[in-house]
Amino acid sequence: MKQASFWFLFWILALRKTSCARFSMENVDSSNASSVTLDSIRDALIRMEDTVVFSLIERAKFPLNSAMYDEKLKVPGFGGSFLEYFVKETEGLQAKAGRYENPEEHPFFPDGLPSPLVPSRNYPEVLYPAAAGININKAILEMYVHNLLPLFAKEGDDGNYAAAAASDLACLQVLSRRIHYGMYVAEVKYRDAPQDYGTAILAEDKDALMKLLTFEKVEEMVKQRVAKKAMVFGQEVTLGEKTDEGKYKVDPSVVSRLYGEWVIPLTKVVEVDYLLRRLD
Amino acid sequence: MKQASFWFLFWILALRKTSCARFSMENVDSSNASSVTLDSIRDALIRMEDTVVFSLIERAKFPLNSAMYDEKLKVPGFGGSFLEYFVKETEGLQAKAGRYENPEEHPFFPDGLPSPLVPSRNYPEVLYPAAAGININKAILEMYVHNLLPLFAKEGDDGNYAAAAASDLACLQVLSRRIHYGMYVAEVKYRDAPQDYGTAILAEDKDALMKLLTFEKVEEMVKQRVAKKAMVFGQEVTLGEKTDEGKYKVDPSVVSRLYGEWVIPLTKVVEVDYLLRRLD
Repeated sequence: MKQASFWFLFWILALRKTSCARFSMENVDSSNASSVTLDSIRDALIRMEDTVVFSLIERAKFPLNSAMYDEKLKVPGFGGSFLEYFVKETEGLQAKAGRYENPEEHPFFPDGLPSPLVPSRNYPEVLYPAAAGININKAILEMYVHNLLPLFAKEGDDGNYAAAAASDLACLQVLSRRIHYGMYVAEVKYRDAPQDYGTAILAEDKDALMKLLTFEKVEEMVKQRVAKKAMVFGQEVTLGEKTDEGKYKVDPSVVSRLYGEWVIPLTKVVEVDYLLRRLD
Repeated sequence: MKQASFWFLFWILALRKTSCARFSMENVDSSNASSVTLDSIRDALIRMEDTVVFSLIERAKFPLNSAMYDEKLKVPGFGGSFLEYFVKETEGLQAKAGRYENPEEHPFFPDGLPSPLVPSRNYPEVLYPAAAGININKAILEMYVHNLLPLFAKEGDDGNYAAAAASDLACLQVLSRRIHYGMYVAEVKYRDAPQDYGTAILAEDKDALMKLLTFEKVEEMVKQRVAKKAMVFGQEVTLGEKTDEGKYKVDPSVVSRLYGEWVIPLTKVVEVDYLLRRLD
């Protein structure tokens, strides 16, 4: 079956000697659409894991600061939470700087975003246009605030709301990019086995698509790898003898759970959504 | 001599068993001024090294994108570079969110910053008020764009200006915080040996102050430690056998040089500036 061989190849590639290119590439180099390959997508996904772990470690410096997420810290004239204000305003600014011209980026507050003030790079259309408009950031924001944050932010309030919100935004942006990358994954999977997917797409059979997309062994290894990254990047690095073995800035099991319970399932939601529109 | 014993103690503490607190604390816990101790400052400085390395690794994902720093990418109606536009606008937003109420934060464009929209935490005065207004961000921005970036960003232009500028901002903010932390360092050093410093301060003897503040052995160890952090945090983490030993996302020698040539000397500039105003 073509899908199985795809994932076998995926994993073999994921374990083999890394090339220099891995280190210098997060964005799919989309100078032309055909350059989006299994290799480039794998590199981007693996590289984003590092960014996810870094951003969680940085957020963990601050306590939970729960006032940022509820009605306690109201911004005059704004209807939502402090974090929502911060994210929406920053997105407005970054939209002017051209951030959302990149099809890999998805705003949390897409309504009424200003136009870019600078000329945009000419991003080629890699994704199938009718399917490219997916945005599940509402679910990502909900998951981040209500499920993830309480798992790794210590109790308390230090009043450093602006800096903590900037850390939240970094987490949210990389999680959004990672999860919406499912569209690129789905596109490459579709191209690799159009018949297998085509049948399920035409039948609008979500379960069949989900089954085609699910490789538990691969998912298990991704979860193990991100936990390992949390250990490596979250350790205390000293010149002397290590005395804090087993202490990490973010609990590795939380990062593993983040991927297992939310990142991987939400990516598959994006993949299925994308595929269902792929033959429109 | 009191200074030597201070640094001996500093280094012993820096090498000893780390406590949990290290992991959860960047900001000096300034619930009262006396809580600013050698311990808390050491923890904050060491923790900021991690943030510096993470932020450089994230910026290294993008090529140099030199148009962001010169006249090639003009933002209509704005006099400076694209990066300056991005930093200034983001600072305006973050000022509204209260970022610069925290005395540890220093804006790159302090003129005309808007007032906070939310109530600020009551930051106690740890620093000597007449000396607390130091801001050398102009020099930091200059150093970052002209000296540091060309050392670690690969040649090229990928057009991802908004995302790259956000990465630049993260680097600039942590470098600024780290370097201006010199004020806290100077305050604690002064409190530890007011006589030694007082004589040099009253004589306005910059050279004598610089000499009092310089401990080459300690500086050398900091440089070694940040290089080690660049190795640990910048390695490719895989579940399989490591095959890329010696490849890092940012060259460790660049991080060491950043500290040796710029972070440490600029911190000492801040320390001397602070001390010269300490008895006003």
